[in-house]
Amino acid sequence: MKQSISDFLKEGNYRVRGSLWIEGDGTRFWGPGPVELLGHIDATGSINQAAKAMGMSYKKAWEIVNRLNAMSKEPLVVTATGGEKGGGSALSETARAMIAYHHGMRERFQQFLEAETKRLTGN
Amino acid sequence: MKQSISDFLKEGNYRVRGSLWIEGDGTRFWGPGPVELLGHIDATGSINQAAKAMGMSYKKAWEIVNRLNAMSKEPLVVTATGGEKGGGSALSETARAMIAYHHGMRERFQQFLEAETKRLTGN
Repeated sequence: MKQSISDFLKEGNYRVRGSLWIEGDGTRFWGPGPVELLGHIDATGSINQAAKAMGMSYKKAWEIVNRLNAMSKEPLVVTATGGEKGGGSALSETARAMIAYHHGMRERFQQFLEAETKRLTGN
Repeated sequence: MKQSISDFLKEGNYRVRGSLWIEGDGTRFWGPGPVELLGHIDATGSINQAAKAMGMSYKKAWEIVNRLNAMSKEPLVVTATGGEKGGGSALSETARAMIAYHHGMRERFQQFLEAETKRLTGN
Protein backbone atom coordinates (compact mmCIF):
# COMPACT_ATOMS: atom_id res chain seq x y z
CA MET A 1 0.00 0.00 0.00
CA LYS A 2 1.60 3.23 -1.12
CA GLN A 3 -0.88 5.49 0.67
CA SER A 4 -0.49 6.33 4.31
CA ILE A 5 -3.05 4.88 6.67
CA SER A 6 -3.85 8.45 7.67
CA ASP A 7 -5.51 8.83 4.26
CA PHE A 8 -8.18 6.46 5.60
CA LEU A 9 -8.55 7.67 9.17
CA LYS A 10 -10.19 10.78 10.52
CA GLU A 11 -8.03 13.53 12.01
CA GLY A 12 -6.62 12.36 15.31
CA ASN A 13 -3.57 11.55 17.35
CA TYR A 14 -2.64 8.01 16.29
CA ARG A 15 0.06 5.93 17.95
CA VAL A 16 1.31 2.37 17.61
CA ARG A 17 1.61 0.89 21.10
CA GLY A 18 2.55 -2.52 22.35
CA SER A 19 3.79 -4.76 25.11
CA LEU A 20 6.70 -7.16 25.34
CA TRP A 21 7.48 -10.15 27.54
CA ILE A 22 9.73 -13.20 27.72
CA GLU A 23 8.47 -16.76 27.75
CA GLY A 24 10.45 -19.72 29.03
CA ASP A 25 9.17 -23.08 27.79
CA GLY A 26 5.88 -21.43 26.82
CA THR A 27 5.29 -19.71 30.18
CA ARG A 28 5.40 -15.95 30.48
CA PHE A 29 7.74 -15.19 33.37
CA TRP A 30 9.35 -11.84 32.59
CA GLY A 31 7.81 -8.53 31.58
CA PRO A 32 6.90 -5.08 32.89
CA GLY A 33 4.99 -6.50 35.90
CA PRO A 34 7.80 -8.64 37.35
CA VAL A 35 10.33 -5.86 36.65
CA GLU A 36 8.17 -3.36 38.53
CA LEU A 37 7.83 -5.81 41.41
CA LEU A 38 11.61 -6.28 41.56
CA GLY A 39 12.02 -2.49 41.63
CA HIS A 40 9.72 -2.23 44.64
CA ILE A 41 11.52 -5.09 46.41
CA ASP A 42 14.79 -3.25 45.80
CA ALA A 43 13.35 0.01 47.16
CA THR A 44 11.61 -1.44 50.23
CA GLY A 45 13.68 -4.54 51.06
CA SER A 46 10.40 -6.39 51.51
CA ILE A 47 8.26 -8.58 49.25
CA ASN A 48 5.28 -7.70 51.44
CA GLN A 49 5.79 -3.95 51.02
CA ALA A 50 6.47 -4.41 47.30
CA ALA A 51 3.18 -6.33 46.92
CA LYS A 52 1.30 -3.54 48.74
CA ALA A 53 2.88 -0.88 46.53
CA MET A 54 1.52 -2.70 43.49
CA GLY A 55 -1.91 -3.46 44.98
CA MET A 56 -1.08 -7.15 44.68
CA SER A 57 -1.61 -9.94 47.22
CA TYR A 58 1.41 -11.19 49.15
CA LYS A 59 0.69 -14.66 47.72
CA LYS A 60 0.74 -13.39 44.12
CA ALA A 61 4.01 -11.52 44.71
CA TRP A 62 5.61 -14.65 46.14
CA GLU A 63 4.41 -16.69 43.17
CA ILE A 64 6.09 -14.23 40.80
CA VAL A 65 9.30 -14.25 42.85
CA ASN A 66 9.31 -18.05 43.02
CA ARG A 67 8.80 -18.31 39.25
CA LEU A 68 11.64 -15.86 38.62
CA ASN A 69 13.94 -17.71 41.00
CA ALA A 70 13.02 -21.04 39.40
CA MET A 71 14.01 -19.83 35.90
CA SER A 72 17.39 -18.44 36.87
CA LYS A 73 20.59 -20.21 37.78
CA GLU A 74 21.04 -17.95 40.80
CA PRO A 75 18.00 -16.60 42.70
CA LEU A 76 16.92 -13.11 41.63
CA VAL A 77 15.49 -12.31 45.05
CA VAL A 78 17.38 -13.38 48.14
CA THR A 79 15.45 -13.47 51.41
CA ALA A 80 17.52 -13.40 54.57
CA THR A 81 16.76 -15.87 57.32
CA GLY A 82 14.54 -14.57 60.05
CA GLY A 83 11.16 -15.39 58.62
CA GLU A 84 8.97 -13.98 55.91
CA LYS A 85 8.76 -10.48 57.30
CA GLY A 86 11.71 -10.61 59.63
CA GLY A 87 14.73 -11.01 57.42
CA GLY A 88 14.14 -8.72 54.50
CA SER A 89 14.58 -9.37 50.80
CA ALA A 90 17.14 -8.04 48.35
CA LEU A 91 17.93 -8.30 44.66
CA SER A 92 20.88 -10.35 43.50
CA GLU A 93 23.45 -9.11 40.97
CA THR A 94 21.78 -11.43 38.45
CA ALA A 95 18.50 -9.60 38.99
CA ARG A 96 20.23 -6.26 38.34
CA ALA A 97 21.82 -7.58 35.17
CA MET A 98 18.45 -8.86 33.93
CA ILE A 99 16.75 -5.55 34.73
CA ALA A 100 19.49 -3.71 32.80
CA TYR A 101 18.94 -6.07 29.87
CA HIS A 102 15.20 -5.43 30.10
CA HIS A 103 15.70 -1.65 29.94
CA GLY A 104 17.80 -2.03 26.79
CA MET A 105 15.14 -4.21 25.20
CA ARG A 106 12.40 -1.70 26.13
CA GLU A 107 14.51 1.05 24.55
CA ARG A 108 14.77 -0.87 21.28
CA PHE A 109 11.04 -1.63 21.40
CA GLN A 110 10.29 2.06 21.96
CA GLN A 111 12.32 2.88 18.84
CA PHE A 112 10.37 0.26 16.89
CA LEU A 113 7.05 1.75 18.09
CA GLU A 114 8.16 5.30 17.19
CA ALA A 115 9.19 4.15 13.72
CA GLU A 116 5.84 2.38 13.23
CA THR A 117 3.92 5.42 14.47
CA LYS A 118 5.80 7.60 11.95
CA ARG A 119 5.10 5.15 9.18
CA LEU A 120 1.41 4.92 10.14
CA THR A 121 0.82 8.64 10.30
CA GLY A 122 3.01 9.46 7.33
CA ASN A 123 5.00 12.01 9.34
CA MET B 1 25.91 -6.11 29.52
CA LYS B 2 28.30 -8.09 27.36
CA GLN B 3 27.09 -11.50 28.57
CA SER B 4 24.06 -13.16 27.09
CA ILE B 5 21.00 -13.41 29.30
CA SER B 6 21.20 -17.15 28.79
CA ASP B 7 24.25 -17.12 31.06
CA PHE B 8 21.82 -16.33 33.87
CA LEU B 9 18.88 -18.53 33.00
CA LYS B 10 18.48 -22.27 33.29
CA GLU B 11 18.37 -24.38 30.15
CA GLY B 12 15.10 -23.80 28.35
CA ASN B 13 13.35 -22.56 25.26
CA TYR B 14 13.23 -18.78 25.68
CA ARG B 15 11.34 -16.43 23.38
CA VAL B 16 10.59 -12.73 23.31
CA ARG B 17 6.88 -12.29 22.59
CA GLY B 18 4.65 -9.27 22.39
CA SER B 19 1.49 -7.63 21.21
CA LEU B 20 0.85 -4.53 19.12
CA TRP B 21 -2.12 -2.23 18.70
CA ILE B 22 -3.07 1.24 17.44
CA GLU B 23 -4.51 3.96 19.61
CA GLY B 24 -6.46 6.94 18.30
CA ASP B 25 -6.68 9.85 20.75
CA GLY B 26 -5.66 7.51 23.55
CA THR B 27 -8.25 4.82 22.78
CA ARG B 28 -7.19 1.40 21.54
CA PHE B 29 -9.27 0.71 18.46
CA TRP B 30 -7.14 -1.50 16.21
CA GLY B 31 -5.27 -4.70 16.95
CA PRO B 32 -5.40 -8.48 16.49
CA GLY B 33 -8.95 -8.74 17.92
CA PRO B 34 -10.65 -6.28 15.56
CA VAL B 35 -8.67 -7.66 12.61
CA GLU B 36 -9.84 -11.19 13.44
CA LEU B 37 -13.43 -9.94 13.74
CA LEU B 38 -13.20 -8.25 10.32
CA GLY B 39 -11.87 -11.49 8.87
CA HIS B 40 -14.90 -13.40 10.19
CA ILE B 41 -17.28 -10.72 8.90
CA ASP B 42 -15.63 -11.05 5.48
CA ALA B 43 -15.95 -14.85 5.56
CA THR B 44 -19.53 -15.05 6.85
CA GLY B 45 -21.09 -11.79 5.60
CA SER B 46 -22.62 -11.42 9.05
CA ILE B 47 -21.59 -9.56 12.21
CA ASN B 48 -23.72 -12.01 14.19
CA GLN B 49 -21.94 -15.06 12.76
CA ALA B 50 -18.57 -13.35 13.19
CA ALA B 51 -19.34 -12.67 16.86
CA LYS B 52 -20.31 -16.33 17.36
CA ALA B 53 -17.11 -17.53 15.68
CA MET B 54 -15.13 -15.51 18.22
CA GLY B 55 -17.22 -16.45 21.24
CA MET B 56 -18.14 -12.78 21.59
CA SER B 57 -21.53 -11.20 22.25
CA TYR B 58 -23.35 -9.59 19.34
CA LYS B 59 -23.35 -6.33 21.34
CA LYS B 60 -19.57 -6.42 21.81
CA ALA B 61 -19.01 -7.10 18.11
CA TRP B 62 -21.22 -4.16 17.17
CA GLU B 63 -19.33 -1.91 19.58
CA ILE B 64 -16.05 -2.85 17.90
CA VAL B 65 -17.50 -2.30 14.43
CA ASN B 66 -18.99 1.06 15.46
CA ARG B 67 -15.67 2.18 16.93
CA LEU B 68 -13.82 1.17 13.74
CA ASN B 69 -16.37 2.94 11.56
CA ALA B 70 -16.18 6.05 13.76
CA MET B 71 -12.38 6.31 13.34
CA SER B 72 -12.31 5.96 9.57
CA LYS B 73 -13.34 8.41 6.88
CA GLU B 74 -15.30 5.68 5.08
CA PRO B 75 -17.00 2.87 7.06
CA LEU B 76 -14.92 -0.31 7.35
CA VAL B 77 -18.01 -2.51 7.60
CA VAL B 78 -20.99 -1.79 5.39
CA THR B 79 -24.32 -3.32 6.41
CA ALA B 80 -26.92 -3.56 3.69
CA THR B 81 -30.44 -2.37 4.44
CA GLY B 82 -32.86 -5.09 5.49
CA GLY B 83 -32.26 -5.08 9.23
CA GLU B 84 -29.53 -6.29 11.47
CA LYS B 85 -29.66 -9.90 10.39
CA GLY B 86 -31.45 -9.46 7.10
CA GLY B 87 -29.13 -7.44 4.93
CA GLY B 88 -25.72 -8.88 5.52
CA SER B 89 -22.44 -7.10 6.19
CA ALA B 90 -19.36 -6.68 4.04
CA LEU B 91 -15.91 -5.10 4.28
CA SER B 92 -15.16 -1.91 2.42
CA GLU B 93 -12.03 -1.40 0.32
CA THR B 94 -10.73 0.80 3.13
CA ALA B 95 -11.03 -2.14 5.52
CA ARG B 96 -9.03 -4.33 3.14
CA ALA B 97 -6.33 -1.68 2.80
CA MET B 98 -6.10 -1.37 6.60
CA ILE B 99 -5.91 -5.15 7.04
CA ALA B 100 -3.11 -5.28 4.45
CA TYR B 101 -1.29 -2.52 6.35
CA HIS B 102 -1.79 -4.48 9.58
CA HIS B 103 -0.25 -7.62 8.07
CA GLY B 104 2.83 -5.65 7.00
CA MET B 105 3.15 -4.18 10.49
CA ARG B 106 2.81 -7.65 12.08
CA GLU B 107 5.52 -8.93 9.75
CA ARG B 108 7.91 -6.17 10.84
CA PHE B 109 7.01 -6.84 14.49
CA GLN B 110 7.68 -10.55 14.00
CA GLN B 111 11.14 -9.70 12.65
CA PHE B 112 11.75 -7.47 15.68
CA LEU B 113 10.73 -10.31 18.04
CA GLU B 114 12.92 -12.83 16.22
CA ALA B 115 15.90 -10.46 16.46
CA GLU B 116 15.27 -9.91 20.18
CA THR B 117 14.91 -13.65 20.78
CA LYS B 118 18.25 -14.22 19.05
CA ARG B 119 19.89 -11.49 21.08
CA LEU B 120 18.41 -12.87 24.30
CA THR B 121 19.48 -16.43 23.76
CA GLY B 122 22.83 -15.56 22.21
CA ASN B 123 22.10 -17.72 19.14
